[in-house]
Amino acid sequence: MTLHPAVAAVRLGVRRVLAALPPADRRVVLVACSGGADSLALLSATVFEARSSGDRVVGVTVDHGLQEGSADQARHTVSQMSALGADETYAVTVTVSGDGQGPEAAARQARYAVLDQVADRVGAAAVLLGHTLDDQAETVLLGLTRGSGGRSVAGMRREFDRYRRPLLDVRRSQTEAACVAEGIAFWSDPHNADPRFLRSRVRMDVLPVLEQQLGPGVAETLARTADSLRVDMEALDELAAEWSARPDALQVTALGGLPTAVRRRVLRAAAVRAGAIDAELFHAHVLAVEELVTAWRGQKWIDLPGHLRARRRDGEIVFEPAAG
Amino acid sequence: MTLHPAVAAVRLGVRRVLAALPPADRRVVLVACSGGADSLALLSATVFEARSSGDRVVGVTVDHGLQEGSADQARHTVSQMSALGADETYAVTVTVSGDGQGPEAAARQARYAVLDQVADRVGAAAVLLGHTLDDQAETVLLGLTRGSGGRSVAGMRREFDRYRRPLLDVRRSQTEAACVAEGIAFWSDPHNADPRFLRSRVRMDVLPVLEQQLGPGVAETLARTADSLRVDMEALDELAAEWSARPDALQVTALGGLPTAVRRRVLRAAAVRAGAIDAELFHAHVLAVEELVTAWRGQKWIDLPGHLRARRRDGEIVFEPAAG
Repeated sequence: MTLHPAVAAVRLGVRRVLAALPPADRRVVLVACSGGADSLALLSATVFEARSSGDRVVGVTVDHGLQEGSADQARHTVSQMSALGADETYAVTVTVSGDGQGPEAAARQARYAVLDQVADRVGAAAVLLGHTLDDQAETVLLGLTRGSGGRSVAGMRREFDRYRRPLLDVRRSQTEAACVAEGIAFWSDPHNADPRFLRSRVRMDVLPVLEQQLGPGVAETLARTADSLRVDMEALDELAAEWSARPDALQVTALGGLPTAVRRRVLRAAAVRAGAIDAELFHAHVLAVEELVTAWRGQKWIDLPGHLRARRRDGEIVFEPAAG
Repeated sequence: MTLHPAVAAVRLGVRRVLAALPPADRRVVLVACSGGADSLALLSATVFEARSSGDRVVGVTVDHGLQEGSADQARHTVSQMSALGADETYAVTVTVSGDGQGPEAAARQARYAVLDQVADRVGAAAVLLGHTLDDQAETVLLGLTRGSGGRSVAGMRREFDRYRRPLLDVRRSQTEAACVAEGIAFWSDPHNADPRFLRSRVRMDVLPVLEQQLGPGVAETLARTADSLRVDMEALDELAAEWSARPDALQVTALGGLPTAVRRRVLRAAAVRAGAIDAELFHAHVLAVEELVTAWRGQKWIDLPGHLRARRRDGEIVFEPAAG
C-alpha cells in the first residue's frame, strides 16, 4: 500500500516541527484536538512521527460547554485519540466567561489557559495546534478587514512560546483526505458553517469567490503574504524594542531621526508602558503623540486612554497622569 | 447654493496636495485626465483650487490607441478640460508596444513616459493622478493575490517623484457624484467592466462580495491597511539602504546580527546591483543566499537569474558571473 499524499503532507509538517524542537530524552508533545479533521489528522501524524522521534504523545480536547452535546463530543474525541495511539489523553471542561470580549475571543482565551495548565502538568516540550493554510488565509482576510495594519494581515505565527502550528502549509482538504485515507471519522463543527460568525462567512462565501474570480491558489498566496509580513513586522518590533532600551529613547532629537514606522512603535510602546490602555490606544493617538516630535508647534498635551497625557518637555516626550 | 459634499471632498484632497508643494510664483500643475469621472472631478477641483493658490493648470489626456474611437475620446476630453477652465491642454498619442510585459503594464509605462515629457516641457511642479480610494482597495486585493509580500499589499503611494494622488481618500462614487453635481458628463471606460481584466473582476465581483459579507467600509479598511503597510515597508527599505552603504554590509558576521527582514532586503538589493534580473529574482533565491549567512554548511554557490552566482568567501557574501 502506498502512502496517501495527504497523509504524507500532514506527517511532513509534524516531522519538521519535531525536528526543530530541542532534543531531549522522552519528550512530551501535547496535541490539541477538537475532533475535527485538522486536529485528528494532526494527532494521527504525531503518533506516527513520535515512533521515530521517541516522543510521548498526549492528546487534549477542550470542552467549552458552548454547544449541546459538547460533553459527549469530548468523550468521543478522547476515545478516538486513544484508538489512534495517543499515549495519554485529557478532556478538560472550561467555563467561558464573556468579560467584555466577544464569545470567540473568550473561548480562545479559556482554551489556551487550560492547554497551558495541561502542558505544565505533563511537562510538554511543545503544544501542537491544527490550524491549516485555509485557517491562515481566513485570518489574513479577517485581519485586512480590521484595518489595524500589518500585524493583523500577518496572520498566525508558526510558533510562539511552546505552541507550534505544523499544518500551516497543509490545506484543510488535505487533512480531510488524510482522515478518509486513514479511516478516521471526523466531526464537523456546525459553528464553522454558521453565517453568524464572521470567520464562517469568510470561509463559506468570501474565499470561494476570490478563488473563482482571481484563480485558484488564492489561499496559498494569502498564506505566503502572511509569512512575508510576519518577518517584516518582527523586524520592526525588534528594532523598536532595541531602541526603547536606550537611555535617550524618548529624546525628541533622537526620535526625529528614526524611520517613521519605528518611531511610531517606540511611542506606542512607551505610552502602553506608562499606563495607556492598549486596546483603546488608536492610530490617531499615536499620530498625535508623534506630532510632538515631528510637527512641534507648542502643543500643550495629548490625552490618551487610561487617564494619561503625553507632553513634550525639555526636549523629551513624557507621559504623566491626566490632571483631575 | 450650498457646496455638494462630494465636490467638497474632491477639492479638499486637491487643496491638501497643493498646500504641501514647495511655494513658488505661478507654479504649473499638470492633471492627467482620461475623461472618466475621477480625473474630470480632479481637473475641475484643481481649476477651482488654483484660483486661490495662483497655480496654472495644464490638462493632459493620453490616447493609447487601444480602443476604437480613442482619438475622438481624446479630442472630447481636451474640449471638456478647456471648458472646465484648464489654462492649457494637451492630447498626446502614444504607441503601446508589448515588449515582454502585459498590455496593462505596457500602457502604464507609455503613459508615465509621456506625462514625464509634458511635465518637463511645461515645467510642472506636480502631476496629479485621479486614483481613488476604490482604486487603492483594488490594488491591495490584487497585490494580496500576487503573494509577493508587504510591498504589493501596500498599494499605491500618495506621492512619488513629481506625481501626487490627491483622491486616495475619496470614493469613486464621490467623484461621480461630484461630476453630476457640477454638470460634467463623464466617460465610462468599457475596459473597467470587462471581465477579461483581473482588476475589473476585483471591482465588479470581489469587492462587492467583501462588502456584503464583511460589512460596509471594507474598501476604506483596505486603503487604511495600505497606508500603514507603506510606512512599514518604507522603514525597512530605508534601514536596508542605510546598511547597504556600510563598507562591511556584506560581511557574514555583520549580516548575521540584522533582523531577518532587513538582511533579506540587503541581500536582494546587493544581488540586483551585481546584475541579477530583478523580476526573476524570487523569494526562494533570496532565502538560498541568506542561508549562506544563517545556515552555512559549506554550500558551493547559489545560481541567480542573470548568469550570476552568490558565494560565501572569506567571511563575506560575493556575487560573481556564472562560469561557462
